[in-house]
Amino acid sequence: MKAFFEPKSVAVIGASANPDKLGYGLVRNLEHFHGSVYPINPHEKEILYRKVYKSVLDVEGDIDLAVIIVPAPIVAKVLRECGRKGIKAVIIISAGFSEIGNKKGEKELIDIGKKYSIRILGPNNFGTANPWIGLDTSFNFTTPDSGEIAFISQSGALWAALSEWSKGRIGFSKFASLGNMIDINFSDVIEYLNKDSKTKVIICYIEKIVDGKRFMKVCRSSKKPIIVVKAGKSSAGSKAALSHTGSLAGSYKVYDAAFKQSGIYNVSTITEAFDRALFLTSQHKKGNKTVIVTNGGGVGVLMADYCSSFGLDVVDLPNSIKKLKISSNWSKSNPMDLVGDANWNTYKKVFNVLAKNKSFYDNLIVIILQQSTIKVEKTVHEILEFRRKTGKSIVCCFMGGKVLESAGKMLNKKGIPCFFEPERCARVLS
Amino acid sequence: MKAFFEPKSVAVIGASANPDKLGYGLVRNLEHFHGSVYPINPHEKEILYRKVYKSVLDVEGDIDLAVIIVPAPIVAKVLRECGRKGIKAVIIISAGFSEIGNKKGEKELIDIGKKYSIRILGPNNFGTANPWIGLDTSFNFTTPDSGEIAFISQSGALWAALSEWSKGRIGFSKFASLGNMIDINFSDVIEYLNKDSKTKVIICYIEKIVDGKRFMKVCRSSKKPIIVVKAGKSSAGSKAALSHTGSLAGSYKVYDAAFKQSGIYNVSTITEAFDRALFLTSQHKKGNKTVIVTNGGGVGVLMADYCSSFGLDVVDLPNSIKKLKISSNWSKSNPMDLVGDANWNTYKKVFNVLAKNKSFYDNLIVIILQQSTIKVEKTVHEILEFRRKTGKSIVCCFMGGKVLESAGKMLNKKGIPCFFEPERCARVLS
Repeated sequence: MKAFFEPKSVAVIGASANPDKLGYGLVRNLEHFHGSVYPINPHEKEILYRKVYKSVLDVEGDIDLAVIIVPAPIVAKVLRECGRKGIKAVIIISAGFSEIGNKKGEKELIDIGKKYSIRILGPNNFGTANPWIGLDTSFNFTTPDSGEIAFISQSGALWAALSEWSKGRIGFSKFASLGNMIDINFSDVIEYLNKDSKTKVIICYIEKIVDGKRFMKVCRSSKKPIIVVKAGKSSAGSKAALSHTGSLAGSYKVYDAAFKQSGIYNVSTITEAFDRALFLTSQHKKGNKTVIVTNGGGVGVLMADYCSSFGLDVVDLPNSIKKLKISSNWSKSNPMDLVGDANWNTYKKVFNVLAKNKSFYDNLIVIILQQSTIKVEKTVHEILEFRRKTGKSIVCCFMGGKVLESAGKMLNKKGIPCFFEPERCARVLS
Repeated sequence: MKAFFEPKSVAVIGASANPDKLGYGLVRNLEHFHGSVYPINPHEKEILYRKVYKSVLDVEGDIDLAVIIVPAPIVAKVLRECGRKGIKAVIIISAGFSEIGNKKGEKELIDIGKKYSIRILGPNNFGTANPWIGLDTSFNFTTPDSGEIAFISQSGALWAALSEWSKGRIGFSKFASLGNMIDINFSDVIEYLNKDSKTKVIICYIEKIVDGKRFMKVCRSSKKPIIVVKAGKSSAGSKAALSHTGSLAGSYKVYDAAFKQSGIYNVSTITEAFDRALFLTSQHKKGNKTVIVTNGGGVGVLMADYCSSFGLDVVDLPNSIKKLKISSNWSKSNPMDLVGDANWNTYKKVFNVLAKNKSFYDNLIVIILQQSTIKVEKTVHEILEFRRKTGKSIVCCFMGGKVLESAGKMLNKKGIPCFFEPERCARVLS
C-alpha cells in the first residue's frame, strides 16, 4: 500500500506531450514530486523536459508505482508489462470497464493482477496524492496544500473540486480515489492511513462498501477518527449511485447502524465532514460546558441558541468572574459580551481570567465581528496563547471582511476551526 | 418613514474631524450620498472638506434627517434643537439609555419626540442605509452593494459583519438597525418597505417584538416575502438577549406560531435567510418536481439525497429524453450525469431538451464541478438563456476554484442562487 502514497519512482503509462490530453496533465502534476518520474509512450521522445520510454521494460531502475492512462483496450497489455517489470503497485485511471458494462475486460485486469501479485487501484480512478512529497497522480488542476486530513473518495470530481476550494484553508496528508475497486478498497486504504504518521483524521466519501465486515473491523480498530459522508441515502440518491459507479448503495439503515457500531462519525454534508475533521486534527471533545466570548451581542445570542440546539451547555459564570471589571460595559454573564468597542486587550483580559478559572467549562467559542477597534492578528495570538496554556477546546466565529477571513484561515491551519457561520461552531463542538 | 431612507439632506450631530471618533466615520460614510450633508459640531470648522455648523438651527436649508452621535447626556438638548428646526426624522446612534438602565433619560427622548412630532429610530442604534442613493448613516466600514434585499436588524454588529461579507455577492435595497425601539419598530419599517419599489424581499433579525398584534397584521398583509431569524429561541439564548438589548425574548413557541400565522419564512440561520432571500428576489417556488444536471456523478448522488430530504421530487425522465444522445456516456436518468468531459455545449444541449419538454418538472438544479473542459462563462450564458425561455426555478451548485466562484457571484446577482454546498441548493428550493 505504501507504494501508492510514498513511492520513490513513478511511471506514467500513456504520458503525452499534447497539453489537451490527460496523459500530459499527469506528467505535469508530478513536476514537484520528490522522486524519479518515467513517462512511457512508444511515440514520444520528450515530455516536459523528461526523457520518454517506450515501455516500462525499457526503464533501467526500479519502478515503485505505475499510473496507467492508455485507452481501455490496451490496459491489459501494459499491465502485463508492469507485472514483468516487477511493479507491485498500479493505478489504472483509464475508464471503460464495469462502469459501462465491460465486466470481461475488468476480469482480465483482476487476473493479471493476481498472476503478478500487483495491487491495483481502479480502474476508472482519479489517482492519489501525497502533498508532503509532491506526489499527485491525477490530472487534477491543483495539488492541495499538505496537512493532516486524509480523504478517500469514490468520486474523483469531488476531489478535483475540493482541492481547488481547500487551497489556503485545509491541508491534506493523503488522498485516494477508489474508482471501480477491483482490488483496493476503503479498508485497505484506512489500514494504511492508520500507520501513516502525517494523517490525523480520515474522511471517506462512500457510495458503497464492498466488504462490510472487514470495513467495520478496520474502522473499529482505527486509532484515528473516521468521518463518513454516505451518498445514496434516499431512493433517488441510491438510484443515482447505481448509474454513477454501478454501486448498489444498499439500505441506508444498514449502513447507519454499521457506522454507529464502528465508532464512525456519520455526517450528512461535505462541509460538516471537513469542519469536524479540522477540529479533530488537533483537538478532541472534552465536555459540553461552553463559554462564549463575543464583541457582538446579537451573534452571541444566536450562538447560545445554536449551542443549546446541539446539546452544549452555555454554563453560568462563577460569581468571582461576574464581579471582574473586564470592561465597563461587558454583560457579566455567558455569552460574555464585551460589546462593540472591545479590542484585542479586552479579549486578552477575558482569556487570562478564563485561564485562571479552568474548572467550570470545557470549551471556548470566540466570536469576533468586524469592528474598527479590533486588531485581529493580536487577538489571534492571544487565542493561540490561551490554547497553549489551558488545552481547552476552542472554536472561533469571525464575521466580517478579508482581514478576518485570512486570520480565520490562519487559525484553521493551526487546528482551531474558524467559521463565518455561528451554527458551524456549535455543531463542531457537539 | 421615507426620510430615514430617502432623505435629500442629512445633518450629522456630533460630527468629528478626528478619524478615531465615530462622528468622523458618519461624515465619511456620507461621502457618496446624493444629497446635502450638514456636519454639526460647535467646536469644528471643517470636516472632510465640508463646512461645519454649530447647531442644526444654523443651517439655512431644510433638513430631512438628523443623525445624533453626541454623548448620552447631551442627546435631549440636540434633539430639542432638531424639533425647533422642524426636522421630522432623527436617528439616535448614541448609547447609554435603557440598555444600561437609564430609563429616565430614554423617557425624556420619547417626550421630546412627541412634543415636536419627530419620528425617532433608536437610541443605541447603528443607522440606516440605502445603497441606491449612497446613503449610509452608520459608522460602518463598508457600504454594501445596491440590490433588492432589505434587512432590518436588532443587531448593528451583525450588519457591520454582513456588509463586508456581502460585497460582490448580495445587494441591499435598504437597511435599518432598530436599537432600543422607543418609537420606530419592525412594523413601521416593514410597512415602509412594502411601498419601496427597490425592495423585493425583507429579512428581519429579531430578538423581540414589542407590538405582536400589529406586527402580525403588517406581515400578513405584506405583498413581499418576509424572512425572519429569531434569536433567543433557547433559554440560554433568551437570557443572552435580555442582557444584549434588554429584550425579553419570550417563549419561542409563541413566536413560532405567530410567524406561521403571518405567512413568514422562519429560518434558523443567517445563511439560510440570505439563501432564501436571494432566490425570492427573482423566483418563486412552482412545485417539487426537480431535474438535476451535473458533470460529477458523486455530487449528483448527494444532491438527489438532499432533494429527497428537503421534500423535493427527483422526477423520472420521460422516455423521449432518455433516448436522446446528449453525449455518449450520459446517465440517461435523473440526475442527468453528463460525466467529466462535458463542456458548455453538452449543458446547452440538455437545456434545449429541457426547454422543449417543460411539462414534467418545476425546478432545475445545475451542478458544475471544476473540469478543464468546462467554459463556465458560456455555460452561465446558457443558464440565463434557459431561464429566459422557460421561467423555471433554477439553482446552481458550482464546486471548484476562483473561476467558478466568480461565475457563481454573477449568477447570484442575477437572482439565480449559486452555492458551493449542494445541500443549500436543495434547501432553497424546498
